[in-house]
Amino acid sequence: MTRPGPSKIHALAMPLALDSGQVLEGAEIAYETYGELNADKSNAILLCHALTGDQYVASNHPITGKPGWWERMVGPGKPIDTDRFHVICANVIGSCMGSTGPASIAPDGKPYAMRFPVITIRDMVRGLVALLDGLGIEKLHAVVGGSMGGMQTLSLAANWPDRAQRVLVLASTARHSAQNIAFHELGRQAIMADPNWQDGDYYGADAKPDNGLAVARMAAHITYLSEEGLTEKFGRRLQDRDAKSFGFEADFQVESYLRYQGSGFTQRFDANSYLYITRAMDYFDLAEEFSDGPGGGKLADAFAGTTARFCLVSFDTDWLYPTAESRHVVHALNATSAKVSFVELSANAGHDSFLLPHDQLDRVVRGFVE
Amino acid sequence: MTRPGPSKIHALAMPLALDSGQVLEGAEIAYETYGELNADKSNAILLCHALTGDQYVASNHPITGKPGWWERMVGPGKPIDTDRFHVICANVIGSCMGSTGPASIAPDGKPYAMRFPVITIRDMVRGLVALLDGLGIEKLHAVVGGSMGGMQTLSLAANWPDRAQRVLVLASTARHSAQNIAFHELGRQAIMADPNWQDGDYYGADAKPDNGLAVARMAAHITYLSEEGLTEKFGRRLQDRDAKSFGFEADFQVESYLRYQGSGFTQRFDANSYLYITRAMDYFDLAEEFSDGPGGGKLADAFAGTTARFCLVSFDTDWLYPTAESRHVVHALNATSAKVSFVELSANAGHDSFLLPHDQLDRVVRGFVE
Repeated sequence: MTRPGPSKIHALAMPLALDSGQVLEGAEIAYETYGELNADKSNAILLCHALTGDQYVASNHPITGKPGWWERMVGPGKPIDTDRFHVICANVIGSCMGSTGPASIAPDGKPYAMRFPVITIRDMVRGLVALLDGLGIEKLHAVVGGSMGGMQTLSLAANWPDRAQRVLVLASTARHSAQNIAFHELGRQAIMADPNWQDGDYYGADAKPDNGLAVARMAAHITYLSEEGLTEKFGRRLQDRDAKSFGFEADFQVESYLRYQGSGFTQRFDANSYLYITRAMDYFDLAEEFSDGPGGGKLADAFAGTTARFCLVSFDTDWLYPTAESRHVVHALNATSAKVSFVELSANAGHDSFLLPHDQLDRVVRGFVE
Repeated sequence: MTRPGPSKIHALAMPLALDSGQVLEGAEIAYETYGELNADKSNAILLCHALTGDQYVASNHPITGKPGWWERMVGPGKPIDTDRFHVICANVIGSCMGSTGPASIAPDGKPYAMRFPVITIRDMVRGLVALLDGLGIEKLHAVVGGSMGGMQTLSLAANWPDRAQRVLVLASTARHSAQNIAFHELGRQAIMADPNWQDGDYYGADAKPDNGLAVARMAAHITYLSEEGLTEKFGRRLQDRDAKSFGFEADFQVESYLRYQGSGFTQRFDANSYLYITRAMDYFDLAEEFSDGPGGGKLADAFAGTTARFCLVSFDTDWLYPTAESRHVVHALNATSAKVSFVELSANAGHDSFLLPHDQLDRVVRGFVE
């Protein structure tokens, strides 16, 4: 995999001690920034990206050439206004857009592949905090994230409570449910069942596990959309034909769309990174981190004594991380007397709604980060 | 694939003219019966099975040795009482438990594989009606089916309105939604991405596309269960361990369960049958069958002039075929002044609820078929 893009690279000053007990040596973090950092370094906003996201928030993706994933939210005069704020977005460790991950070269000169340590959401945030340290940013104006980015945002707020004044969490959860884990396991099994996966040692091989990765992406993509949204967007409409083919081509538009999503994804993402990042998400249970053992803990304990302001946003058709998950976080914050606001927005696009045009969302984000 | 079981085999007297325009010659239907047929052949109940179901309703499965899939509902003194009724359940064409399907030997002496014609739900019912003709059963006391069995049940009621006095449809739909199609397409892509699939020509080969089929089954299985049911059954509980492994083993119970479901399924089901049957379900749009072209039609037209009594049952946590789909059928039946009753039952197991113990369901079924 060619090292992507023109991102800035921060080499961590210290080895990264991971939740697994392992230590990641010589890790690098690739990041993008938008807008100027002010003199007292008080106007920084850290954006945390989702599972298959990256640091290209508001600039073209170096592989696909497509606009950044949150162009509509981040830029001059936009809700996260780069005329006022210095926006930082870093590729998480474990990913494949320049930060150290399974495709990176290990100290022995070969790619890590499955020798890369299993990481957690908190480990990702350890990397982000190390980056902030490196940049000399003591306290963020805000930390913002949707989906897995919201998990990082919550993890930062809980584990580094002095590092952010405002915490904005969109379409996310404080723990992965059994159904969330099930969908991810399905994706992992699809990848690992692909003979080209080769126990992860496919770097430099003629073929990558693209088929398995495409199936994993298709499964995930279904969870990002609502039943209503799919019906409105595709219904049972046929693709470039007037009648069913009575064959196994993509007769329906929704089939064609899914195939396109699956195959397009393999151009820009590393299958092993998909395994590691989904694993990190499945392991995420913020309450458990503040307890004595697996499955225990009170989420309120994660936020004890926090002075940050929180805002949680959910979408009524998001069945991946439904409103109840956001409300669960809000209740925990209420129990600690934290400053928290919460809004459930109506949108028919399901989980993906946080990435799509939504005037009310814009107003909420703009108002909260001001 | 060894021809399974001790089922009765009915060789169709006539070639089967299919919706595709193709003709299936020499088709056979494998079926089981329970209870005695009375002298005037008026006590027959046809049960229609689901996607991966079969004719072994109330007798052990010949491959797995497990009890029949609806033992709790069908038998002496049970809601569908075999002391009173003659229950017939036939393997649908396209399947792999004895009825003609892609694994069957074509007239040229080789397995059909992907040369098997693409079939529809109505084609399956054509096979069932031919079986009834062969058995000399003019009018069913009732036709009953859940999930894909419910589609067949609706198709029989619409296309052969004189053949059934009572029509009982559980957890089903009159058309496959975009989301339904998406999940099936995901499964098909998983199978067809498996190198052992070999364009369907794997019969007699050393290896079958078991990995792909297992992934397809895992995906489907998630849709059969509710988020609530998964949380109650598994939550985030670990499997045979006290702590996360920080690896890619099945740490969570839900992962272990899914892997088991996936691999177990490959022992008893043919991958090509999975392709054909999911395709038939995706093609299902009962209103369209009574219209001039793709996507059109009023569902009420499918039931015009019916004299049968209908009963629709949905489950509140079924997100595969949610209550709205049953209600859509009920409204169409109301519009034709058909006799119809409808109940949404509360159950936390999602789509699978129709197969699981449920006292209210038992009472509804018993009361309706009496």
